[in-house]
Amino acid sequence: MDPDTLSKTFVEHYYNTFDTNRPALIGLYQEGSMLTFEGEKIKGAQAISNKLNGLGFQQCKHHISTVDCQPSGLLDSMIVFVSGNLQLPGEEHMLKFSQMNELMIRIPVSLMFHLVPANGTYFVFNDIFRLNYA
Amino acid sequence: MDPDTLSKTFVEHYYNTFDTNRPALIGLYQEGSMLTFEGEKIKGAQAISNKLNGLGFQQCKHHISTVDCQPSGLLDSMIVFVSGNLQLPGEEHMLKFSQMNELMIRIPVSLMFHLVPANGTYFVFNDIFRLNYA
Repeated sequence: MDPDTLSKTFVEHYYNTFDTNRPALIGLYQEGSMLTFEGEKIKGAQAISNKLNGLGFQQCKHHISTVDCQPSGLLDSMIVFVSGNLQLPGEEHMLKFSQMNELMIRIPVSLMFHLVPANGTYFVFNDIFRLNYA
Repeated sequence: MDPDTLSKTFVEHYYNTFDTNRPALIGLYQEGSMLTFEGEKIKGAQAISNKLNGLGFQQCKHHISTVDCQPSGLLDSMIVFVSGNLQLPGEEHMLKFSQMNELMIRIPVSLMFHLVPANGTYFVFNDIFRLNYA
């Protein structure tokens, strides 16, 4: 699989897992993995999993807009840069105001993964996530 | 200098150079450097410099909102993730419409650098840039 296809496949797999079975994300990280989430630095698969599972929203859907990929210079590793939107249920007061249970808000996000090969697959060594407030 | 301070200093230097003396950016890249600019892949310091100098706007100002940094696993190298805004002169028809020469537009941007040490300084090995359209 070429790097562009591989990185797109990885990103789709990651966010499908995030949106439908978030605890399973732990399998994509290792002990040395790092996540910076909105400026907060977290290290190690267990701590990263705790952070992702403890986020204040349970229902969410990621919409991927762009995926860019480059070899990082570390043997067969890849930097994957993603932009998109995170769709969340509207705030409670918004729901009450509108009386529409379907109301969702979309927040632009950008993020990157540094994927490093191990045991015939890839794990996430670096992960940085930011919401793009206007 | 700690990695967070170093990466912020680098980003400020890079965008100050971009906004005031764009041809000098060539000194921050090397032959193996890669730039992906809005999905277009460019390789090598000279080609990257040609691309950056050939962008359709001459006047611009970058406003940095966030800078995140992690060690990439490659000896003393750093991944630097940036969000911010690119301020450009308004479109000509907008200027005519408003008759305000000061009119500027701001576009949210996100980007990353992978900085690799060489000869006592850092050069940009990976560079990915995206405009974040709403």
